[in-house]
Amino acid sequence: MSSTAGQVIKCRAAVSWEAGKPLVIEEVEVAPPQAGEVRLKILFTSLCHTDVYFWEAKGQTPVFPRIFGHEAGGIVESVGEGVTHLKPGDHALPVFTGECGECPHCKSEESNMCDLLRINTDRGVMIGDGKSRFSKDGKPIYHFLGTSTFSQYTVVHAGCVAKIDPAAPLDKVCVLSCGICTGFGATVNVAKPKPGSSVAVFGLGAVGLAAAEGARVSGASRIIGVDLVSSRFELAKKFGVNEFVNPKDHDKPVQEVIAEMTNGGVDRAVECTGSIQAMVSAFECVHDGWGVAVLVGVPSKDDAFKTHPVNFLNERTLKGTFYGNYKPRSDLPSVVEMYMKGELELEKFISHSVPFAEINKAFDLLLKGESIRCIIRMED
Amino acid sequence: MSSTAGQVIKCRAAVSWEAGKPLVIEEVEVAPPQAGEVRLKILFTSLCHTDVYFWEAKGQTPVFPRIFGHEAGGIVESVGEGVTHLKPGDHALPVFTGECGECPHCKSEESNMCDLLRINTDRGVMIGDGKSRFSKDGKPIYHFLGTSTFSQYTVVHAGCVAKIDPAAPLDKVCVLSCGICTGFGATVNVAKPKPGSSVAVFGLGAVGLAAAEGARVSGASRIIGVDLVSSRFELAKKFGVNEFVNPKDHDKPVQEVIAEMTNGGVDRAVECTGSIQAMVSAFECVHDGWGVAVLVGVPSKDDAFKTHPVNFLNERTLKGTFYGNYKPRSDLPSVVEMYMKGELELEKFISHSVPFAEINKAFDLLLKGESIRCIIRMED
Repeated sequence: MSSTAGQVIKCRAAVSWEAGKPLVIEEVEVAPPQAGEVRLKILFTSLCHTDVYFWEAKGQTPVFPRIFGHEAGGIVESVGEGVTHLKPGDHALPVFTGECGECPHCKSEESNMCDLLRINTDRGVMIGDGKSRFSKDGKPIYHFLGTSTFSQYTVVHAGCVAKIDPAAPLDKVCVLSCGICTGFGATVNVAKPKPGSSVAVFGLGAVGLAAAEGARVSGASRIIGVDLVSSRFELAKKFGVNEFVNPKDHDKPVQEVIAEMTNGGVDRAVECTGSIQAMVSAFECVHDGWGVAVLVGVPSKDDAFKTHPVNFLNERTLKGTFYGNYKPRSDLPSVVEMYMKGELELEKFISHSVPFAEINKAFDLLLKGESIRCIIRMED
Repeated sequence: MSSTAGQVIKCRAAVSWEAGKPLVIEEVEVAPPQAGEVRLKILFTSLCHTDVYFWEAKGQTPVFPRIFGHEAGGIVESVGEGVTHLKPGDHALPVFTGECGECPHCKSEESNMCDLLRINTDRGVMIGDGKSRFSKDGKPIYHFLGTSTFSQYTVVHAGCVAKIDPAAPLDKVCVLSCGICTGFGATVNVAKPKPGSSVAVFGLGAVGLAAAEGARVSGASRIIGVDLVSSRFELAKKFGVNEFVNPKDHDKPVQEVIAEMTNGGVDRAVECTGSIQAMVSAFECVHDGWGVAVLVGVPSKDDAFKTHPVNFLNERTLKGTFYGNYKPRSDLPSVVEMYMKGELELEKFISHSVPFAEINKAFDLLLKGESIRCIIRMED
């Protein structure tokens, strides 16, 4: 691959020319990485709701033409000046948030909210020079989340690239770039349920299923799935969910239903829907004295979290998390290792797979609620 | 003292006959302890706002005549059937909340909210038989918080009595029964600031000063006192407070003022006022990524804590605490030891001292805001 280093690469990318319209596979030009950047050959990418959300651009800042995609696995093609932790040939996962290693957040053991490379959904250019590395016919095509993995080659800030075990199958571990780590980390890094404890998971989409998987891996004995769609329970059983509550089936608040089921409340709750009502329920359904609720889902701009302060004073804890509190570069290699050892099961998250040419099928499947994760094979 | 065991004891007690009216020192009869109870000779008691609050009974259930008092130190006079962890002559602190040792809360390492002996402000009788142990002229006088320490002798559930080092001066350690442990524990047990970190303390009354003392003992380098009364800062310096913010001095929310002072927010905040506005400010002034806010102050019944959920998602934590998360029987002996070793300084909390006959002076001093803690000498 070194023959392409320093050169513009021509490759196929799925370009989103307009909000909500099918992506078009185009030949694009990908400029070489600048200082502190890495050019990756993407082998597998998967589709996440966040791609769909910004592609639909309903109420979001429209940035088009754009190359979406942020869950992926690939191989380093070349690196820019000053990049020392990666070299051509390394297997890597690009991540939508980064780790500069120098800011107070990176230096804190507790935070992964890097000041420099924290997620920025509106930016469509590289942080270094404010320009795009993608172009077609001399006109720029914008980046998304600093990753833009719906392209056979992409340029990413080196702080957003985790080097991983080359033995790990990229068509599986690519899902760790976003949703699965977000849910799994929310449980194992933040909620931290003890073996034998009870955990309620609000929302049984990919992130919620990953939160349940975290509870299963932690040895929780009661994993209560909460969702408005009862048909999701059957699938959720694979992820350790062994009880199910549909709030629609009850004429009292779901937090009261759960408190009755669990003699006062669950030990931990993880909220993965983004609904403000679910956030309040998740907090109020944890047991007094020791209960911890963790918010994961992204709320609307005008939402307000509201509860009686006595719910806190009775020794409940409410925390939020971002990307499961994982620091991408420092922590992802060990999550990959958990998968390699068979502790974290990724296969069950992968419901579909399509060749790159059929990427729009992946959108259809997600929009219809039929897929958990659909892998897009970039070389097929 | 064993000569009085099993007998009714006649002694002096400060009886509150009517809401808001001066207490009257009366000779009362104190019945012997029943099964699971302890009769204590109270040597020193101190006055806390909670006594004043229920004595005023504005909006609270009026329970009169009543013997108030819940911060005290004394000596076990006799014990009822089945009490094994205390014997006559033991030095002890009665506490308004207890530790049965058997319930899920007592068995949890994290909780001190005992199911059986959790604080109950309305109950005026013993939990065992629903009767009062105090009487005058054959008529019952009601208990308060299960402690009623404004009496030379009182009967307390054994689960609410902590046995302590007999070398500890009771006229000092008596203040650990409530306010000081509440604030100190909120910081050292719940907020847990690291050495060199920043801590904001909202409210510089006795509980807030104890929270500041906890920050000082923890090695926090910036301890920011927040209070509407600027004159409190001078005193607060003794407790480690080294910066002061009066929200009235600023035309923007105090959380913004603190964020500007601290490059994004404090590491920890402890709220000791009970004002809902202060609770929101305390939460919103902690740093994203790692900030922890702890609620201590008791809110009004109709208050609602309200914030944008993104404040949580940016990795802030909000917790509440009750009695500083101390389990009375298990944990108070070690707090007494911290005082004995000179780590926790109790003397500076004790601003006044009066003989029992002048107990109403202690009320005046607290109502005027002149005292932190006023010790009432029960034998003078």
